[in-house]
Amino acid sequence: MIRHPSFRVEPWALHETALELDILAQTESLFALSNGHIGLRGNLDEGEPHGLPGTYLNGVYELHALLEAESVYGTPESGQTLVNVTNGKLFRLLVDDEPFDIRYGDLLAHDRVLDFRAGTLRRTAEWRSPARRTVRITSVRLVSFTHRAIVGFAYEIEPLDGPADVVVQSELVANEQLPTFGKDPRVAAALEASPLESEDHLCFGSSAVLVHRTKRSGLRVAVAMDHSVSGTSRVQITSESGDDSARVVVTDVLEPGQRLRIVKLVAYGWSADRTVPALRDQVLAALAGMRPTGWDGLLADQRTYLDEFWAHADVEVEGDSELQQAVRYALFQVLSSGARAEGRAIAAKGLTGTGYDGHAFWDSEAFILPVLTYTCPGAAADALRWRHSTLPAALRRASDLGLKGAAFPWRTIHGEECSGYWPAGTAAFHVNADIAGAVVRYVNATTDYGFEREVGLDVLVHTARLWRSVGHYDLRGEFRIDGVTGPDEYSAVADNNVYTNLMAKRNLVAAAAACERHQDNARELGVTTEEMAGWRAAADRMVIAFDDKLGVHAQAEGFTTHEEWNFAATKPDEYPLLLHFHYFDLYRKQVVKQPDLVLAMHTCGDAFTAEEKLRNFHYYERITVRDSSLAACTEAVLAAEVGHLRLAFDYVAEAALLDLHDYERNTRDGLHMAALAGTWVALVAGLGGMRDFAETLQFSPQLPDGLTRLSFSIRYRDSCLRVDVTAAEARYSLLHGTGALRLMHHGAPLTVTGAEPIARAIPPSPEREPPTQPPGREPQRRSPG
Amino acid sequence: MIRHPSFRVEPWALHETALELDILAQTESLFALSNGHIGLRGNLDEGEPHGLPGTYLNGVYELHALLEAESVYGTPESGQTLVNVTNGKLFRLLVDDEPFDIRYGDLLAHDRVLDFRAGTLRRTAEWRSPARRTVRITSVRLVSFTHRAIVGFAYEIEPLDGPADVVVQSELVANEQLPTFGKDPRVAAALEASPLESEDHLCFGSSAVLVHRTKRSGLRVAVAMDHSVSGTSRVQITSESGDDSARVVVTDVLEPGQRLRIVKLVAYGWSADRTVPALRDQVLAALAGMRPTGWDGLLADQRTYLDEFWAHADVEVEGDSELQQAVRYALFQVLSSGARAEGRAIAAKGLTGTGYDGHAFWDSEAFILPVLTYTCPGAAADALRWRHSTLPAALRRASDLGLKGAAFPWRTIHGEECSGYWPAGTAAFHVNADIAGAVVRYVNATTDYGFEREVGLDVLVHTARLWRSVGHYDLRGEFRIDGVTGPDEYSAVADNNVYTNLMAKRNLVAAAAACERHQDNARELGVTTEEMAGWRAAADRMVIAFDDKLGVHAQAEGFTTHEEWNFAATKPDEYPLLLHFHYFDLYRKQVVKQPDLVLAMHTCGDAFTAEEKLRNFHYYERITVRDSSLAACTEAVLAAEVGHLRLAFDYVAEAALLDLHDYERNTRDGLHMAALAGTWVALVAGLGGMRDFAETLQFSPQLPDGLTRLSFSIRYRDSCLRVDVTAAEARYSLLHGTGALRLMHHGAPLTVTGAEPIARAIPPSPEREPPTQPPGREPQRRSPG
Repeated sequence: MIRHPSFRVEPWALHETALELDILAQTESLFALSNGHIGLRGNLDEGEPHGLPGTYLNGVYELHALLEAESVYGTPESGQTLVNVTNGKLFRLLVDDEPFDIRYGDLLAHDRVLDFRAGTLRRTAEWRSPARRTVRITSVRLVSFTHRAIVGFAYEIEPLDGPADVVVQSELVANEQLPTFGKDPRVAAALEASPLESEDHLCFGSSAVLVHRTKRSGLRVAVAMDHSVSGTSRVQITSESGDDSARVVVTDVLEPGQRLRIVKLVAYGWSADRTVPALRDQVLAALAGMRPTGWDGLLADQRTYLDEFWAHADVEVEGDSELQQAVRYALFQVLSSGARAEGRAIAAKGLTGTGYDGHAFWDSEAFILPVLTYTCPGAAADALRWRHSTLPAALRRASDLGLKGAAFPWRTIHGEECSGYWPAGTAAFHVNADIAGAVVRYVNATTDYGFEREVGLDVLVHTARLWRSVGHYDLRGEFRIDGVTGPDEYSAVADNNVYTNLMAKRNLVAAAAACERHQDNARELGVTTEEMAGWRAAADRMVIAFDDKLGVHAQAEGFTTHEEWNFAATKPDEYPLLLHFHYFDLYRKQVVKQPDLVLAMHTCGDAFTAEEKLRNFHYYERITVRDSSLAACTEAVLAAEVGHLRLAFDYVAEAALLDLHDYERNTRDGLHMAALAGTWVALVAGLGGMRDFAETLQFSPQLPDGLTRLSFSIRYRDSCLRVDVTAAEARYSLLHGTGALRLMHHGAPLTVTGAEPIARAIPPSPEREPPTQPPGREPQRRSPG
Repeated sequence: MIRHPSFRVEPWALHETALELDILAQTESLFALSNGHIGLRGNLDEGEPHGLPGTYLNGVYELHALLEAESVYGTPESGQTLVNVTNGKLFRLLVDDEPFDIRYGDLLAHDRVLDFRAGTLRRTAEWRSPARRTVRITSVRLVSFTHRAIVGFAYEIEPLDGPADVVVQSELVANEQLPTFGKDPRVAAALEASPLESEDHLCFGSSAVLVHRTKRSGLRVAVAMDHSVSGTSRVQITSESGDDSARVVVTDVLEPGQRLRIVKLVAYGWSADRTVPALRDQVLAALAGMRPTGWDGLLADQRTYLDEFWAHADVEVEGDSELQQAVRYALFQVLSSGARAEGRAIAAKGLTGTGYDGHAFWDSEAFILPVLTYTCPGAAADALRWRHSTLPAALRRASDLGLKGAAFPWRTIHGEECSGYWPAGTAAFHVNADIAGAVVRYVNATTDYGFEREVGLDVLVHTARLWRSVGHYDLRGEFRIDGVTGPDEYSAVADNNVYTNLMAKRNLVAAAAACERHQDNARELGVTTEEMAGWRAAADRMVIAFDDKLGVHAQAEGFTTHEEWNFAATKPDEYPLLLHFHYFDLYRKQVVKQPDLVLAMHTCGDAFTAEEKLRNFHYYERITVRDSSLAACTEAVLAAEVGHLRLAFDYVAEAALLDLHDYERNTRDGLHMAALAGTWVALVAGLGGMRDFAETLQFSPQLPDGLTRLSFSIRYRDSCLRVDVTAAEARYSLLHGTGALRLMHHGAPLTVTGAEPIARAIPPSPEREPPTQPPGREPQRRSPG
């Protein structure tokens, strides 16, 4: 999409210089702002035209019935869908009685800038009304990182070619009419037209409040707005409120050179428990609390917060300016998805759209948390605290499934399983090991043993119990995990999926180790020495499927004996395959939607030899179609590891530009948050070669032709490590932190002690015949731009 | 249920001597009458009380949406459900203004007899009204085997203890109110309250007609009734009709000793194409055509038809009178399900209820047609003609699934796939081999090569093409069929299911053989010598999964390495498991719902050694829970073959009494037609040891202790073979037929030439330790009754 001529490549901003209606919905996702608690799609201030209007509060969902053609035991009966809550970002403008709507009159100039350092979306428009009066409208909006409940707007209007009567209605609107969707399973389930029930509304001066409740899930949402207005002496302000809308109306008469400026602060609050008066007062108090700060303070706080973030998290890419922009965009959005989620999930789309119903999947722990763990560890801990808070539902679910321990849901907002198709949902038990793995990664990176004791241990113990109970010993005494689904959704319900088994193995071992560290707490959970021995034994005897004839690992037992997908007969418009072929056909053939065995080689790389990695990568590359946004980053990582740097570069770019170029053609439904996180993964774990599964952090940096420098910082334990890579050498230094940090550079140990960089040469990359992809599914060859 | 003291064991009838309201719905199924075209549940003449009112026409279904929680490519969007059509069996009776309803007043006597030779259901009731007038009501009903469109009733009323004013409303009622059901997936989908739309109604004299159309499927149904009444001189007859009902009202004043007798003939017709006048006239013509025959002629024709059937199909069992009754009951109902279906399906419940939505499954070809092939071969041919008529839908379905050939549906009425849960529906491809197998069996048993050319060849060729396309050669050159579901519904989507592979193998070979016989027709289907060679090669290299370590066949690859179901921890009320455990849990463990590998040992017995059969039977017996009505008969067959005669006897009885004793507690939804057919299979293939997979028909009869004689007749080629078995010997004779019939007796060849029986000794049965079943799932020990 940013290949669109209206987009400019800039290092610290996403910049659009013309408005294209055919990509409006995509730009709404791209220009979304969020702090993890509140999310605003980048809808135009005036509300219309729109692709999908969207204002979201993390955790506010509505229930809808999940209907089944045939009743199957254990299928959830209701689903949860993210609700579009009260829209507080509306400014309806009338210029000499003509409504400002870019579909009428002439849009003479349009400019939008999402500024990664300021944390604001700035828009400038020059518009000539059908009555031929030209005005300039400038708006700035932000969702505050520092004031979690607050979003703010500064809206200015100025006539350019003559006097103008202007009316601005600054609104709160609930139950907005939404467009309807088709049958693509990846978009949201339809809710009834008005999911919100009005409970209270009031207005006074330039303030107003609306209180609503979701009809089935019973969640109460309160929104308050306040304004400060500066205009001419003729400015007038009134306000009014009703069940589903409230407005503050500002009128003024402006001469050229005069401006009307309206600063609007909106506070959001929601609760399943608090009463109407309590929640109403809460949002009014949040606004009152902003008075000392004001708009300028809000902007300053936002910049300070982001300065601090970038100082420890920036990734610099030299030689490919588009990639430079993309990775910063990705980091900005990933941070936005989780910064202030505080006990709520990080959904697959963050809070940028209702794709996948606003559900969180394994993506969160497997792709997003690795990034947050090393760039904003507090947000990673918060996301894991959310999972921990859903343990009661996971324990119940396991029990319903006849299992011990906890079975976390495949997709959810509130913690209950919401998947209606169990072979690709409930059966994907690896989600539990992914969650446990995220705990282990976070604790290892932060040494936050308090977190481990209070949050991590519960998760590790209950997931270890799940694995012990899902798996069993066969007659040879090997531990098997049968009938589960791995990350590749083009296979399902198979035996001994290698990714699942390796991740379960790590889960079991980590649970035992954590119990050793926190013996009293483990005892409270009823863990005995014998149980821990049982976990370790199961880990020890875990079956790993290997095809001796082919000399490669089988993604799951039997996989490599299956028929190969007929790629030659598959037309380009038949991708993604899931929309054009029956699962029956996909499941029984060798075709991979997204890395599964290859992902195992990334996350559990210590379980494979270098030779195996090379052979496996070539084998699976040939049958992987990347119908998932989670694919490219992992392929970048392994391509780099096995020495295909040019291919790795291609995949880095594919991951980085997935939303910006709208490769999956559904960015309109929301950003692919895990793929954005994958941009960082592809660069840091891919080209940087960072691995964190061993005691010592490992790096094997290598640059493909075209990149001249890659530099990144990660937070690790009490340090911030900076890694600066050129073609010839890598330089390691600590931005702060005391003591020495031991790490590995291309397999050789190294100790970094301070700000003085330690340089190490980068070994030459081997000359290798690159692997092949299914015809037509090769990644685009990256020509650095 | 017939253990109920109100049921009597009689050799040629099902006889109930008291009415028990708690088993009313079950008795409605048991006393159902059908000719395969029209089905009437055994509802009381007066309509109420009822369990489930039911009048069905084979092929008359309504569409309903199949809703999905998550959209999946290739899932059917609408289902078909058997419709309760216009009820023509109603006689509402008023006695001195009191409605006859057995819930009020006193039912002094009740007697119902389903007579297997007369083909009638006779009811006698003596009832004292709340006003204390006693009357006797006698009714006889039949669904004519000889006049396909006609059902008839003779209804008599007689006061016993004083004069009575009687009013009889003989009715046609459409859109009857139906009870609602729970979540059991085995009952019918709910349709809207009034699926039938009135199109025409009229009445004249003692006749009336109603014409309706199903609202979504657009099928037109016409019903006409006519009456002949004999009463006193005071008898009066009027008639009236409306949209959804028509009635002929007969009033009389009876003294004790006087009777009012009403004979009602009802004609049914339906069509997707014919107009209202055409269909209305069709049913009136059908009634007019009955005038020469009359009620007595109808009764006589019915008996003649059944005499002819029993002469060639009777099974006599000595030593167990309940089993004698049960097998004749079973044969009567199996005949009723298919006798006059003529181009329509034989559904899992026949036309006795709406269980399973009135759908036909593989049961029809795999269990019902073996019986009809050898007892009423014309009905078997008709059922296969129905399948053949659905070939266009099956070809489309295969194409939608990316396959060649024809993919017949898992469940349907009209031919389109109606299964909403594909792992247990679409993936159960064995249905195609079952259909092909039924063709092969029918042609072999009848030498009806005209049928083979016109009907069979299409089916064989298109199913062979399906198998060639579903399967593939692995790197060792073996032909694999991956990712399919076998008969055991507690496993799904597995590789190389032995039953499927063996049946597919036979399908491939049979198709090639049929093409050799009908070369011109084969050429028209585009079959080349090379294609036939391809079928034979695939058959030749078919993978058969065997576990060398355990020395048993694996139901599917990997099955024997799965965890064993924890039977010890499973409570008796947790069966059937599918209602209490998640498929995830069932699929990945060793637990078998119904014979799968054991069924393969029956239908493809020539693919196993005797030693393998014994080991396999013991292995699978231990993990088979018989949660399916299709289980017991097959276990009877294999138990007998491997020498466990006492166990075989137990299974014979379980199969025979499944509906009569309501073992599955859902006979209320309709009879289990395949299990009824299984009664014959258990006796003839089980104790009689009949096998038909080789060139020569084989018998290995053996009687368990308790049975003194088993005798059965089968139609085979141009003969009717009678087999008469006692403990010591078997006697083979031809009831008619010319020429000699070669067969095998316990492995030794034998030629039967005429009516003179040839006797052969029966070898002694080996002494063997019986196998075990899961705890609590042992069959009831049969004590002959």
